[in-house]
Amino acid sequence: MASSLKRLLIGKPIATERHQQERLGRRTALAVFSADALSSVSYATEAILTVLILGGALALGFSLPIGLAVAFLLIMVGLSYRQTIRSYPQGGGAYIVSRENLGELPGLVAAGALMIDYVLTVAVSISAGVAAITSLASTWGHPELRAFAVPLALVFIAVVSLSNLRGTKESGTFFAIPTYAFIAGIMGLIGYALIHDFIQGADPVVHIIPPDIPADQALGVWLLLRAFAAGCIALTGIEAISDGVQAFKPPEGKNAATTMTAMILLLVTMFLGITYLAYLHGAMPNLNSQETVISQVARTVFGVGPAYTFVQVATALILIIAANTAFADFPRLASFLSRDRFLPRQFASRGDRLVFSNGILVLGLSSALLVVMFQANAIALLPLYAIGVFTSFTLSQAGMVVRYIRLQPAGWQRSILISGIGAILTATVMVVLAITKFVHGAWAVIVLIPLMVLGFKTIHRHYVRVADQLSLSTAARPRPVRRITAIVLVSGIHKGTLPALELAKALAPDNVTAVYVNLDQEQGERVRARWSEWGCEIPLVILDSPYRSLVTPLLKYVDEIEGRYRDDHMLIVLPEFIPSRWWQNLLHNQTGMLLRTALMFRKGKTVISVPYKLER
Amino acid sequence: MASSLKRLLIGKPIATERHQQERLGRRTALAVFSADALSSVSYATEAILTVLILGGALALGFSLPIGLAVAFLLIMVGLSYRQTIRSYPQGGGAYIVSRENLGELPGLVAAGALMIDYVLTVAVSISAGVAAITSLASTWGHPELRAFAVPLALVFIAVVSLSNLRGTKESGTFFAIPTYAFIAGIMGLIGYALIHDFIQGADPVVHIIPPDIPADQALGVWLLLRAFAAGCIALTGIEAISDGVQAFKPPEGKNAATTMTAMILLLVTMFLGITYLAYLHGAMPNLNSQETVISQVARTVFGVGPAYTFVQVATALILIIAANTAFADFPRLASFLSRDRFLPRQFASRGDRLVFSNGILVLGLSSALLVVMFQANAIALLPLYAIGVFTSFTLSQAGMVVRYIRLQPAGWQRSILISGIGAILTATVMVVLAITKFVHGAWAVIVLIPLMVLGFKTIHRHYVRVADQLSLSTAARPRPVRRITAIVLVSGIHKGTLPALELAKALAPDNVTAVYVNLDQEQGERVRARWSEWGCEIPLVILDSPYRSLVTPLLKYVDEIEGRYRDDHMLIVLPEFIPSRWWQNLLHNQTGMLLRTALMFRKGKTVISVPYKLER
Repeated sequence: MASSLKRLLIGKPIATERHQQERLGRRTALAVFSADALSSVSYATEAILTVLILGGALALGFSLPIGLAVAFLLIMVGLSYRQTIRSYPQGGGAYIVSRENLGELPGLVAAGALMIDYVLTVAVSISAGVAAITSLASTWGHPELRAFAVPLALVFIAVVSLSNLRGTKESGTFFAIPTYAFIAGIMGLIGYALIHDFIQGADPVVHIIPPDIPADQALGVWLLLRAFAAGCIALTGIEAISDGVQAFKPPEGKNAATTMTAMILLLVTMFLGITYLAYLHGAMPNLNSQETVISQVARTVFGVGPAYTFVQVATALILIIAANTAFADFPRLASFLSRDRFLPRQFASRGDRLVFSNGILVLGLSSALLVVMFQANAIALLPLYAIGVFTSFTLSQAGMVVRYIRLQPAGWQRSILISGIGAILTATVMVVLAITKFVHGAWAVIVLIPLMVLGFKTIHRHYVRVADQLSLSTAARPRPVRRITAIVLVSGIHKGTLPALELAKALAPDNVTAVYVNLDQEQGERVRARWSEWGCEIPLVILDSPYRSLVTPLLKYVDEIEGRYRDDHMLIVLPEFIPSRWWQNLLHNQTGMLLRTALMFRKGKTVISVPYKLER
Repeated sequence: MASSLKRLLIGKPIATERHQQERLGRRTALAVFSADALSSVSYATEAILTVLILGGALALGFSLPIGLAVAFLLIMVGLSYRQTIRSYPQGGGAYIVSRENLGELPGLVAAGALMIDYVLTVAVSISAGVAAITSLASTWGHPELRAFAVPLALVFIAVVSLSNLRGTKESGTFFAIPTYAFIAGIMGLIGYALIHDFIQGADPVVHIIPPDIPADQALGVWLLLRAFAAGCIALTGIEAISDGVQAFKPPEGKNAATTMTAMILLLVTMFLGITYLAYLHGAMPNLNSQETVISQVARTVFGVGPAYTFVQVATALILIIAANTAFADFPRLASFLSRDRFLPRQFASRGDRLVFSNGILVLGLSSALLVVMFQANAIALLPLYAIGVFTSFTLSQAGMVVRYIRLQPAGWQRSILISGIGAILTATVMVVLAITKFVHGAWAVIVLIPLMVLGFKTIHRHYVRVADQLSLSTAARPRPVRRITAIVLVSGIHKGTLPALELAKALAPDNVTAVYVNLDQEQGERVRARWSEWGCEIPLVILDSPYRSLVTPLLKYVDEIEGRYRDDHMLIVLPEFIPSRWWQNLLHNQTGMLLRTALMFRKGKTVISVPYKLER
């Protein structure tokens, strides 16, 4: 039953030989790789305003200079990443670049930061996508949809996870539609608003949901720094192209770099445009993002109608596509780490549908957990988000600087300058983020990254040790088995016991005993009485158990027998009856499993399960 | 590690022979068995008021006649239970009485109703106990403690569960203190208030928390019926004495019946007294029981001071003792059902500390779940509570009527009258409860009881079938094993594989093959290359797996070999390496377990695990 459900949900297995990768033209690649970065336009402005408003409504004017500072950062980091792309045409994610140029530890830090980041990409994007939909519902007079934000978000996560588990490669067009719709919607909004406002003046936003103005903090350098840090969320996702250079049509490096430039220009324009419009029209954040800032702007500029609806729907769609990007990146990074033996090997194997199923499942479940914990509130999740991104930015660019120093390719002085400035800028922002967002949630990430690195190292050490211990280079020829001693553990004397007794007699004709643990006096007598008739001529030993434990007296007896026949190979034979349906297992003491676990872990004994299959 | 934690929490195992039962005098027995019943005084009045207030503040006056009706019901059911006690000196719970006199189905219905009931006793009592504490905190100026109601309640459930898992029998005194403190507190409150109010007039309650007056319903028969149904919660727990007659000192029946009378009288007095005082002083329920009605009354009568604090603390303690009662009753009922094969047999075995550990765990977890779902709001839980109680009351008393008709003991006509009236009254109330509380949560119980009965029957059928299938009465002598064919499944060639190969050669000298599934071309080549040196002269078969599945090609191969050597007994040998620490298992594909499960369930094959224990 479980198996047919799986087939229904994710489809039939796909043969290994069908594994291949689609190559994308620049236009499609822009859609595929920039969804994550561009979609941050939908919440970056609101993130800045949410901080500024703590200093009162007048403080919102500072959103413009802060927006410009973020745009400057975007351009600098973008330039730096263009260089990475050209140096790593086979794909230069932060893990690979840091590990190769800075060493194992920085590589693992980058990997840990990125993994946290991908989980947050999903949680934030899906939550923001839901906010776009509930905002639309609010303007239609249904603010109550917000109460269903968490279940809605979970459904989206489930759908994206399943579609990734199915793993059928959607054509680039599938991604292109929402991304280009979003670009068209936002650019149209900005263009229309600029013209309209120039001619008729800007209408102020009519707030359907009352804005949330706590206004309890002094406007000062600290608040401005915090607002800037909040805005840096606009940089999330811009590294995506550098991870996926291989997916471009040749010449890969050149095409990817051009696409990167186009993406950065679009991102800067859209982010600054929305920030300006939000200021001009007096958009203000409200509690739990009941109506998003971008919805307020679009509604005020276009009026409630098809153009506004288009913007909201396109926003929701690009955010879901952005989440989808993480479902490609996280399992791939996990598989790299797994191949390098820093994560359990289960992450390296492709499932039925040729995708890294375990990575997809872990990502889906952890992002779902975050969504529930944060009640699908994207703005509340943001303080956790950016710190991982900037850690990996910094490490990746620092790695590039080291690489240029080491390899000294043509024009290396200029390259060092660009990557160096990028590294210094992002490192500074990282420190600012860590300090300003510390109490708002960044502490969790700051604690989590070293824990993850510790985990990676522990896992690595285990695998290395296992390989050492299993290596044949130090192996002696194994001793051949001389004689077999068998102990049959019986829970009674019934049809299910007989095959085990017969088999034990055949395997250890010279030395076989049956053992019964006496938990219930009456039953013990019954077993003894029937043994002479049904015991297959095997001697029976009955053990007492004053503390009602099955395992303890057995282990003691096994020790004793083992001591007596040191040169023999000892077999423990367990008759097990197999119910006809899986749930019926719950109705039986899992004695067999319990014993097997106890014997394996404590003594490394050879255990045989002799099944007796029940028909009904 | 897990094992030492267990020892720390619940203590060392206790020997079976130390099992015995304490006999209680009437005074101690009253404390032990009536905590559950008496503690309902702390919420029954509030339950009535919560319904009446829907009809406006004036409707609260109807609490007095409703209280009298509930008191009448209490006395009638109490009289009826006195008879049950005399007829079942060995303990006459509803399951036993209904099953014996009415048949299996009514017995199972009573059992299902009781089990639901015990879970609710824990959830309601603990939630009400927490409400007593948070009310006290509110009057001390800390209403914010209410926000921690759920974690507080979960801690209490955990403590009670653990203390029951430890199972050291507390002396009766342990229970006596809170119960008698509660009786003293409430009786003192009533007495003091009556005198004080008579002399100085009754002060109205000053509401710290504003009362919750929705007042949106017409006051009519329907609302009065609902309020009466709500008040019937006062009857919960009065059956406890009849379950535990055996725990009384001889003459058991007489002592238990006298104790029952004392309990009913106390309960009626306390319930009516509190209801009267609540009316007189104008106590009103508020949202989420932020301050309970009984706290309002005590605070107004005594003023905030030691006497008031005493009442609140005693209320919290008796409620926790009441929850503790369910931790004795539920596991015992589950063990009865399990012995009669209506529940999994795991419920019938006593754990390390001689208690029915599985029953305790299931009760603790399910009540914790309810507390979380209902946010530790006792009043919100009540609509689910009473329906199960009254179902078991009705069945038990109807069972007694049938018994008297059948056995016709001395004075049977009078006995039939009393039990018959009891049965008719409780059946009527049950119908009223089902109708009036249906939409408020009773529907869940009405759906759940038949599902549980279905579950009991399904489990029973399974056990009967298994016994049939295992019975030796139809067994033929088993065929002796002729020859052994062994297949060794190798995942590579390393130190961990060698012992399995040697053992397989010893067990099946005539016919042994090793099988390797080729998931990775490169690794496959390596295994083949090293086989001639390390393969212990066993032929190697390499299977292709186009869909990357390990299990499918193996099962196919096993089928093939099985077809070829029909007369042999086939052994599947699995080399398994055992990590030195349990968590390291997570780092390895659970291939062994997977294969064992697949082979057992689909084919009932004999599987041998040959362990190779890793040292580090």
